[in-house]
Amino acid sequence: MLKKSPLAPKAFPSLPKIKGIRLSSIHSGIRYKDKLDLSLISMTKDTNVACVVTKSRAPSAPVIWCKKIKKIGKAKALIVNSGNANAHTGSKGIETVKNTVNSVANHIGCNANEVYVCSTGVIGEHLNENIIINAIPKLKKKKESSWKEVAESICTTDTFIKGAKSKFNVENKNFNVVGIAKGSGMIFPNMGTMLGFIFTDFPLPIKILNFLLKEAVDKSFNCITVDGDTSTSDTCLLFSTPSVFFKDSIKQIKDKRLKPFKDALDKVLQSLAQQIVCDGEGASKFITINVSSVKSQKSARNIGLSIANSSLVKTAIAGEDPNWGRIIMAIGNSEVPLIQDKISIAINKIKITKKGSLVANYKEDLVAKKMKEKNIVIDIDMGIGKENSTVWTCDLTKEYIKINADYRS
Amino acid sequence: MLKKSPLAPKAFPSLPKIKGIRLSSIHSGIRYKDKLDLSLISMTKDTNVACVVTKSRAPSAPVIWCKKIKKIGKAKALIVNSGNANAHTGSKGIETVKNTVNSVANHIGCNANEVYVCSTGVIGEHLNENIIINAIPKLKKKKESSWKEVAESICTTDTFIKGAKSKFNVENKNFNVVGIAKGSGMIFPNMGTMLGFIFTDFPLPIKILNFLLKEAVDKSFNCITVDGDTSTSDTCLLFSTPSVFFKDSIKQIKDKRLKPFKDALDKVLQSLAQQIVCDGEGASKFITINVSSVKSQKSARNIGLSIANSSLVKTAIAGEDPNWGRIIMAIGNSEVPLIQDKISIAINKIKITKKGSLVANYKEDLVAKKMKEKNIVIDIDMGIGKENSTVWTCDLTKEYIKINADYRS
Repeated sequence: MLKKSPLAPKAFPSLPKIKGIRLSSIHSGIRYKDKLDLSLISMTKDTNVACVVTKSRAPSAPVIWCKKIKKIGKAKALIVNSGNANAHTGSKGIETVKNTVNSVANHIGCNANEVYVCSTGVIGEHLNENIIINAIPKLKKKKESSWKEVAESICTTDTFIKGAKSKFNVENKNFNVVGIAKGSGMIFPNMGTMLGFIFTDFPLPIKILNFLLKEAVDKSFNCITVDGDTSTSDTCLLFSTPSVFFKDSIKQIKDKRLKPFKDALDKVLQSLAQQIVCDGEGASKFITINVSSVKSQKSARNIGLSIANSSLVKTAIAGEDPNWGRIIMAIGNSEVPLIQDKISIAINKIKITKKGSLVANYKEDLVAKKMKEKNIVIDIDMGIGKENSTVWTCDLTKEYIKINADYRS
Repeated sequence: MLKKSPLAPKAFPSLPKIKGIRLSSIHSGIRYKDKLDLSLISMTKDTNVACVVTKSRAPSAPVIWCKKIKKIGKAKALIVNSGNANAHTGSKGIETVKNTVNSVANHIGCNANEVYVCSTGVIGEHLNENIIINAIPKLKKKKESSWKEVAESICTTDTFIKGAKSKFNVENKNFNVVGIAKGSGMIFPNMGTMLGFIFTDFPLPIKILNFLLKEAVDKSFNCITVDGDTSTSDTCLLFSTPSVFFKDSIKQIKDKRLKPFKDALDKVLQSLAQQIVCDGEGASKFITINVSSVKSQKSARNIGLSIANSSLVKTAIAGEDPNWGRIIMAIGNSEVPLIQDKISIAINKIKITKKGSLVANYKEDLVAKKMKEKNIVIDIDMGIGKENSTVWTCDLTKEYIKINADYRS
């Protein structure tokens, strides 16, 4: 692995087992020499799944497959490899997925449309399906792997492995949400993908699972940006195993028992999303952008993302320069209607502008000093509504250019 | 001025006088110590003008003024300063423009709505109107300045001054199109603006002038990007002086006599747009992206701009890395419907993919060698239509980060 990001958490968290989930990871040799690179995660009967994938118009072959089967909402296995994204590989790539899926289905004893596939790595190179197909019996037989091993097996240029957990209680029973993810940019040196796999032993119907995953992704993975580039392979899967049976099963989205699960899901997804930002290529600062008092959440997020995607804002933060004119520029660039005379800006709690004008006694030195911190919080009050949104990103440094320009594929 | 860009043209072109246009530039001391920073360009009676401004939702006070008067379409003067953009300056900034315009109108003897104002430089600081108002009599009296001096007076962090010309003949009479511009990024270290001022002695009605300017801007200034950031102050003005009177004056957009003018206008605008790209902050390579065989020109341009705005594509080119997977990623990111199996990609005339697959005998070394050149041409054939578009950009280098992060305002 590359040198660990200065924003990395101290350690990988200790993650609990999820009833009905079996983990298995090996080194298969798809691309990397020593690293774990292939995992088979198998699920107990009646596991439901929700799936959100990249909006790219040029999705990878595994994404095309996941999009096809996700309506059914049942999962018996997830097979995932790193080192090759199987993206822009034409009909041959589609064939590789089909053969992989059939082989897993045969070994596990399930339908092909219960097998999810994810690949991350180089774009445009053919993935050798034989390596994967030959490894399936081995993956099935070997003793169970840890979450840490699975999380390692999905990494490409990540500088640290990413996991998160949360627990909650419903009807006096304890439940868990566990998640692992990879990502260090929307796309990597010659590689593509952000992957997020979430598992819970809280039993939920497919419809509710999909609704809640979409909602949670909109507040987490869809609120982060490293370089504004959408990957060909982004995939987030949420698996729910039937660990218990409620007398009165959850059928409605309004069911109050969903609240603790939603909170746990948000916590895990937001932690993983923030870890991806912390592993942003060349990142030296973690940036939180809170946009408030806007007419809709979507508008608030668009303003936040416009700021978070501005190279000029990100370089100013790398240079610890309180260049708020660039923030105004980025707000104006978001296509959201605004009233300039109502905008207030603060950086790390120091007010800079209030209702469109520089605050009295503004001291730039003070903000510059605060910007030396690792965590930068930009608060934008638009003054025209009641909705808000938070977006996370990292700064844009010379190291980013070094990683992406000096790297030879 | 900063160290000249390695992509700068050899010299500023020798530009002809335009009948009915008077130039005057001075150093007024708004911000810079020695540089010319204020120009008054006055026009003969009955000069028509067309105007295109930034789409920013947070436009500067001068942009708000230009938007207000552009419907009238008559111009007697343009007053332009560098060093301060008069952007995000609230009602005080609006007042400054009003007082400036009234003062120019009094001195010239015209209506206020015939006076155009442009400002470029720092965002968020109040522009001292007295400096400008006191300078107006001096600007009016002094001997005429050259195009080169006016072009210098509008520069901020530009590393070279920008001008272009073209001539043509209609009904055995010679006409000229002359243009000057500034820009070195969509926005500068704490400053904002791309400005383009175009002058012609070819007499045209306001309606036609506006139509043709919009059309020409869509093929030039709207086809370039340096960092994807839209300025608060972008303004392009096209002035047409009544130098001659045609017996049968031009009234219809279909008039065949417009063709040579349109060609000249395209030539000047595209040259200026390309010069701005060549002055892109930290640029070491000039990149042309030709997107062909798409259903509409707009879709072709969107695909081109998606590639041109991708930090990962731009850093790969800086690193001379034929990382075509990133080009696919950016194409998929453009939101234009596509068929992956029809896409062909070439870099500097070497074919990489054909109809969605790597060409037989693809030699990456050959492309890598070609990428050492200063000019990079990316040809994308989407294979799904008959329209095309060309977009220009520069690479993203460590120098860009240095200019934008290490700079302290």
